[in-house]
Amino acid sequence: FEKMVNVVTGFAKEAKKLGEEDPRRVVHSFKVGLAITLVSLFYYFDFSYEGFGVNAMWAVMTVVVVFEFSVGATLGKGVNRAIATLLGGALGVGAHRLASFTGEKIECIMLGMSVLLIAAATTFIRFFPKLKARYDYGLLIFILTFSLISVSGYRDDEVLDMAHRRLSTILIGGSVTVFISIFICPIWAGEDLHKSLLLTLKSLRLSWKVKSCNNEILIYYPLSCYMNAKSSMSTNLTGFGREYFRVENDKNQENKASLDEYKSVLNSKGSEDSLVNFAKWEPRHGKFRYRQPWDQYLKVGSLTRECAYKIDALNGYLKSDVQTPIEIRSKIQETCTKMSSECSVALRELAVGIKTMTCSLSADPHLLNAKTAAKKLKSLLKTNLWPETDLLEIVPAVTVVSLLIEIVSCTVKITDAVHELAS
Amino acid sequence: FEKMVNVVTGFAKEAKKLGEEDPRRVVHSFKVGLAITLVSLFYYFDFSYEGFGVNAMWAVMTVVVVFEFSVGATLGKGVNRAIATLLGGALGVGAHRLASFTGEKIECIMLGMSVLLIAAATTFIRFFPKLKARYDYGLLIFILTFSLISVSGYRDDEVLDMAHRRLSTILIGGSVTVFISIFICPIWAGEDLHKSLLLTLKSLRLSWKVKSCNNEILIYYPLSCYMNAKSSMSTNLTGFGREYFRVENDKNQENKASLDEYKSVLNSKGSEDSLVNFAKWEPRHGKFRYRQPWDQYLKVGSLTRECAYKIDALNGYLKSDVQTPIEIRSKIQETCTKMSSECSVALRELAVGIKTMTCSLSADPHLLNAKTAAKKLKSLLKTNLWPETDLLEIVPAVTVVSLLIEIVSCTVKITDAVHELAS
Repeated sequence: FEKMVNVVTGFAKEAKKLGEEDPRRVVHSFKVGLAITLVSLFYYFDFSYEGFGVNAMWAVMTVVVVFEFSVGATLGKGVNRAIATLLGGALGVGAHRLASFTGEKIECIMLGMSVLLIAAATTFIRFFPKLKARYDYGLLIFILTFSLISVSGYRDDEVLDMAHRRLSTILIGGSVTVFISIFICPIWAGEDLHKSLLLTLKSLRLSWKVKSCNNEILIYYPLSCYMNAKSSMSTNLTGFGREYFRVENDKNQENKASLDEYKSVLNSKGSEDSLVNFAKWEPRHGKFRYRQPWDQYLKVGSLTRECAYKIDALNGYLKSDVQTPIEIRSKIQETCTKMSSECSVALRELAVGIKTMTCSLSADPHLLNAKTAAKKLKSLLKTNLWPETDLLEIVPAVTVVSLLIEIVSCTVKITDAVHELAS
Repeated sequence: FEKMVNVVTGFAKEAKKLGEEDPRRVVHSFKVGLAITLVSLFYYFDFSYEGFGVNAMWAVMTVVVVFEFSVGATLGKGVNRAIATLLGGALGVGAHRLASFTGEKIECIMLGMSVLLIAAATTFIRFFPKLKARYDYGLLIFILTFSLISVSGYRDDEVLDMAHRRLSTILIGGSVTVFISIFICPIWAGEDLHKSLLLTLKSLRLSWKVKSCNNEILIYYPLSCYMNAKSSMSTNLTGFGREYFRVENDKNQENKASLDEYKSVLNSKGSEDSLVNFAKWEPRHGKFRYRQPWDQYLKVGSLTRECAYKIDALNGYLKSDVQTPIEIRSKIQETCTKMSSECSVALRELAVGIKTMTCSLSADPHLLNAKTAAKKLKSLLKTNLWPETDLLEIVPAVTVVSLLIEIVSCTVKITDAVHELAS
C-alpha cells in the first residue's frame, strides 16, 4: 500500500514539475479537452439521428489525432488530413466505379489488386526523406481513406454520399481544432524556435562568462583555480584551504551546469528540425512573416552546435589533471580574458539583435577586438615565451589558447549567419 | 511538359536508390498492401451485412495505423492500441452507465464534463517523458475510444455490444498485422540496433585506418602528408609535386568520407533511442533474448559518439594550416602509429566479438599495447624533445598526441562497456 502511495506522490510531483516548467502544457491539455467536448456536443445537438454514429466518430477522431502542441504541427496535420482524405476518397470512388462495370467476381479481384498496389506504392513513398518530413501523415491517411472507401463502397451504393459526409465531418472537426489552436492561447512553433535559438546563444554566452570568471578567479586565487583536488600540489595548499574548496565547488557546479547546457545544445538538432518543419506551416503571426527564412535558423543552430563542441573540449582541458604552472599562465592571462569577454559581449549583442529582429552591427567592434586579441596571442606564442619549461606542462595552456582562437573564428561565423538571418 | 518528365524520372531514380539501399523497404511495402487486402477480403466474405461498414473500417484502420517498419514498433503499437481500446472502452461504458441514472439534461452535462476532464488529463500525461517514449500512442487511443464510446453511446443503448464488436475487429486487424509482420520476412529492430552498433564501431576503426594510413604516408612521403597545398613550403616541393597532389587528393577524399561517417555517428542518438524503444517490445528471436540488455547498447553508443567527437577534433588538426616540421614529427612518429594501429585492431576484435556475441578477451592485449605506447609518449613529451623550436609549430603535433592519448582511454571505456554487454 505504501508503495502505491509513493508512486502516486511521485507521479503528482512530476506532474507539478512538468506544469511549472512550461505552463502551456496545462493550457494545451485543456484546449484538447475543450475541442473534443465541443465536437461531441455539436453532434449531440445535431438532429439527424441516422448519420450520427459514424460521422461523430470521424469528427472526434480528427480532433483527437490532429490536435498537436504547436499551431504549426496542428495546421500541418490538418491540411495533410484534409487533402489526403479528398484525394484518397476521389481515387477510391473512381476505383469503385471502374470495378462496378465488370462482373462480381472480377470486381472483387480488381478492388483487391488496386488496394494492394496503391497501399504498397504509398507505403514505399513514405520512405522518401523529403516527403516523410512534411507529408508522412497525409500519405498514411491517403492509404486509409482509399481502402475504406473502396472496401465499404463495395456493398454500399451510396459511396459518393458517404464520401461527401465523411469529408464534411472531417472538415468540421479539423476547423474546430485549428480554430481553438490558433485563437485560444496559441503556441507558435516559430516562436519556440526563435526562443530556442536565443537560449542557445545565451547558453554559449553564459559558458563564456564561466570561462572568463575562471580567468578572473585565476587572478585572485592563482594556485587554486586551475587545479584539481587530486593534484599533487594540494598538500602545499593548507593556507588556501577554505577558499580553495569553496571556489572549487563553485567552479565545478558552474562547469557542470554549463556542461549540461552544451549537452542540450549538442542534442538539439532533432527538436530544431521538427520545429522548423512545423514553423513552415504557420501563417504570419506577431513579428514573423509567413515565409520567414526558417532554414537560416537551422544554419545558425548548426554553427552554434559546432561552437558548443569546442567549448566542450575547452571544458575538458580546464578539468584536466595536468595543469600549467601559474607563471606560465600569467603571460597569456590578460589576452585570454580579453578575448573571451569580447566574444561574450558580441554574442550578447547578437542575442539582443535577434530578440528585436533588427540587423544591428553593434557586435562587430567587439568581434574586431576579439580578433585582434587572437592575433596578439598567436604572435605571442611565436616569440617562444617559455624557454626552459617542461613541455607537458605547457600543453594544456597552449591547447586552451588554440581552442579559444578557434572559438573566436566560430563566433565570427555565427555573427555572419545571424546578420544574414536579420537582413 | 519536359519539366514533368524530369520530375518523374528524378522520382523514379530516387525510388530505385531507396530500394537498392535497403531492399526490405520494398518488402515492407508489399507486406502492408497484403495485410490491408487480406483484412478487406476477410470482411468481404463475412456474411453479416449489418455490422460490415463500421467494423471493417476499424479493422482496416488498425492495420494501416499499426503496421510499422520493424516488428518491435508494430508490436508496441498493437499492444498499445489493444490495451488502450479495452481500458478506454470500459471507462466509457462505465461513464455512460453512471450518467444514465440521472436525468437527460444532467446526463448531457455529466458526459461532457467527463470527456473534457479525461481528455485533458490524458493529454497532460502524454507530456511525461517516460510514458511518452513507450505509451504515447496508447494514451492517444485511450482518449479516442473513451470519447467515441461515451458520445456515440449517448443515443444508442447497445453500447456494450458495440464496444465488444469494435474490440474484436481491432483484435482481428491487429493480429493479422502482427502475424504478417513477424512471419513474412520479419524486420527486427533489435537486429538493426545490433548492426548499427557494429557499423559504428567499424566506422571508428576505419577512421583509425585512415589515421594510421596518414601516418604511414608520413613515412613514405614525409614532407607531403601533414601539409596543406596552401602551406608556404609548397614552393620547395616541385620534386614531390605529382605524388604530393595525388596523395593530397586521396587523403582529402578519405578524410571527407570518414568525416561524413562521424557526422552520421554524431547524430545517431535519436535513431538509436527509438530503435531501443522498439527492440524492447520484441520477443526472443535468433540470437537475441527477450530481455536483451538494450540499455547497455545505448551506453556503448554514447561512448562511441564521445570517441567520434575526439576523432573529429583530430581531423580538424590534421587539416589545420599550421603544421609541425618533419624533424619534430619524426620523433613521435613511431609511437603514434603503434598507438593508432593497436587501437584499430582492438576495435576490430570488439566488433568481431559483438558479431558472434561472445565475450572474447582478444582485444585486451592490443589495448595494453596502446596504453603502453600512450605512457611512452607522455614520458617522451616530458623529456623536452625539441629544445629550440618555435612553439607555434609544436602545438599541432602536441595536440594530436594528446588527442590520441584521450582516444586510447576512450577506447578502453568502450571495451569495458562491450564486455559488460557480452557477459
